Amino acid sequence: MGLQPKTKNGTEGEKGHSCDTVPRMGIGMDASVTPIPGKPDTFLAQTTDFFYPLVDDPYMQGRIACANVLSDLYAMGVVNCHNMLMLLASSNEFTEAERDVVIPLMMEGFQDTAIEAGCLVTGGQTVLNPWVTVGGVASSVCSQSDIIMPEGAVAGDVLVLTKALGTQVAVNAHQWLEMGGDKWDKISSATSETEVKNAYRSATLSMARLNLIGARLMHKYGATSATDVTGFGILGHARNLAENQLAQVDFHLHTLPIIRNMVKITKACGISFKLLQGFSAETSGGLLMSISPEVGSNIVYKVLYVCTGSKRSDK
Amino acid sequence: MGLQPKTKNGTEGEKGHSCDTVPRMGIGMDASVTPIPGKPDTFLAQTTDFFYPLVDDPYMQGRIACANVLSDLYAMGVVNCHNMLMLLASSNEFTEAERDVVIPLMMEGFQDTAIEAGCLVTGGQTVLNPWVTVGGVASSVCSQSDIIMPEGAVAGDVLVLTKALGTQVAVNAHQWLEMGGDKWDKISSATSETEVKNAYRSATLSMARLNLIGARLMHKYGATSATDVTGFGILGHARNLAENQLAQVDFHLHTLPIIRNMVKITKACGISFKLLQGFSAETSGGLLMSISPEVGSNIVYKVLYVCTGSKRSDK
Repeated sequence: MGLQPKTKNGTEGEKGHSCDTVPRMGIGMDASVTPIPGKPDTFLAQTTDFFYPLVDDPYMQGRIACANVLSDLYAMGVVNCHNMLMLLASSNEFTEAERDVVIPLMMEGFQDTAIEAGCLVTGGQTVLNPWVTVGGVASSVCSQSDIIMPEGAVAGDVLVLTKALGTQVAVNAHQWLEMGGDKWDKISSATSETEVKNAYRSATLSMARLNLIGARLMHKYGATSATDVTGFGILGHARNLAENQLAQVDFHLHTLPIIRNMVKITKACGISFKLLQGFSAETSGGLLMSISPEVGSNIVYKVLYVCTGSKRSDK
Repeated sequence: MGLQPKTKNGTEGEKGHSCDTVPRMGIGMDASVTPIPGKPDTFLAQTTDFFYPLVDDPYMQGRIACANVLSDLYAMGVVNCHNMLMLLASSNEFTEAERDVVIPLMMEGFQDTAIEAGCLVTGGQTVLNPWVTVGGVASSVCSQSDIIMPEGAVAGDVLVLTKALGTQVAVNAHQWLEMGGDKWDKISSATSETEVKNAYRSATLSMARLNLIGARLMHKYGATSATDVTGFGILGHARNLAENQLAQVDFHLHTLPIIRNMVKITKACGISFKLLQGFSAETSGGLLMSISPEVGSNIVYKVLYVCTGSKRSDK
């Protein structure tokens, strides 16, 4: 992965205007950044996210939801989250016993991950809804130097991705395994129960992992821009990040980490996850950052190893 | 309404501990207040709320949702909201045409009320859900002097409520009118279509009204504590506020404003809204504040008039 000077006739995107002294307001960035009037060098960086359960372990689901919310701050280099609020819905179709098992575990997972991030959950809102819902709000009151705006990449930088791709495929394959039926029949000739369970475990742990270490390394090694990889897939987010750059650069992606066996499963299942096209949705995916080649070739592997323990796939 | 020295054997509630220099962290207060390390006299005050539509006008529903979120900041005296995020779910049971009418209007209402509050909606999250959902997050980066902690009431203060009670009854009565059936039959002997429509209009406008003016008046006239009246009804919130006070005080409530005709409708409908017992839920209800009697007797009526235009009912 690396950056090249922009060669095509670059039209500046909607978000492509420069702003030298004050970060741009948040629309289009991973987190919104608001300068606070009357308080010099003080900015409110914040983000919110909520969704429906993906994994069958409520505790891990809580951890994933929290890591997913915080990821948008980390993508902006903001490592100190000062406050979290939790957004929660229990299902009106739960029995009381189901509710009393699932909801406290989900809350515990969310809170444990918030503590890992060094902040407290001080409030939120809980409702009844047909579908269980979990998410939150992450906020930081920070200085300009705490923020890495997603616009400073220069030609020659290397690109680093800190988590393996393929979480959506892994979660779906595991669901098919649990439910049996046509979809499991389709992929079971290409994979095994063990492979699917291993991939599901890898994906769950990866989604529950904070991007905090990646964000700290961005400051330590001077990353020039970053985003996190979520619903639009690696290519969607990389394109958005490339368009945000102030310098004339192209992004070249190659040699991507993918959860083991997800390539063959996506080929066998007959459903277009677009994993190989770069558009498979990720939940709580890794940071994609641009960083100087001087700290590059070693750092690429260090960051990848520290954050995920992943090895590169052979794709 | 007035405050008396506490006479019963006062046990200090969970939230009753004192903290001289730093506001307490938010659990139990209307908004959470977090001191920011390394930034002197800087606090993050924030709150989140989301719920399901109550009124049949999507634009007004958006306004109500926004006013309801902001109300928790205003209840703490925080008048400058610096950023809002919107939480939104469209229904997966909508046709595309329904979605394209309802959702943009709801967003417009939310944004218009945010602008009225002097802040921008810079982000949020939108999902598909069986039930339409709308809400948001309101945040302020403020100084200690911007916050009125809900604990400073002293014996002799007067209590002021800035919006009329009865929104839940008005919304339900209107629904029964629209749908016909048993419930409408029960109340139609006591009320008329015109009365119900007028009450519904009053309730809608009241719920959509920001508590910003009330919060500004709290600073101007030195309110000693406040809360906003929402899901637990006037008595639930008044009790919570009373328990929070540092001084030994009792709260005495009398002569409450109620939306016209809601008392007779609640008596006729046969459903216990507990309006007359003080526990009828309110949405985006008024501020209940304690304030010195020196600015009191005139101010009571001024605040009430400025904020709601309501006259006191004869209850």
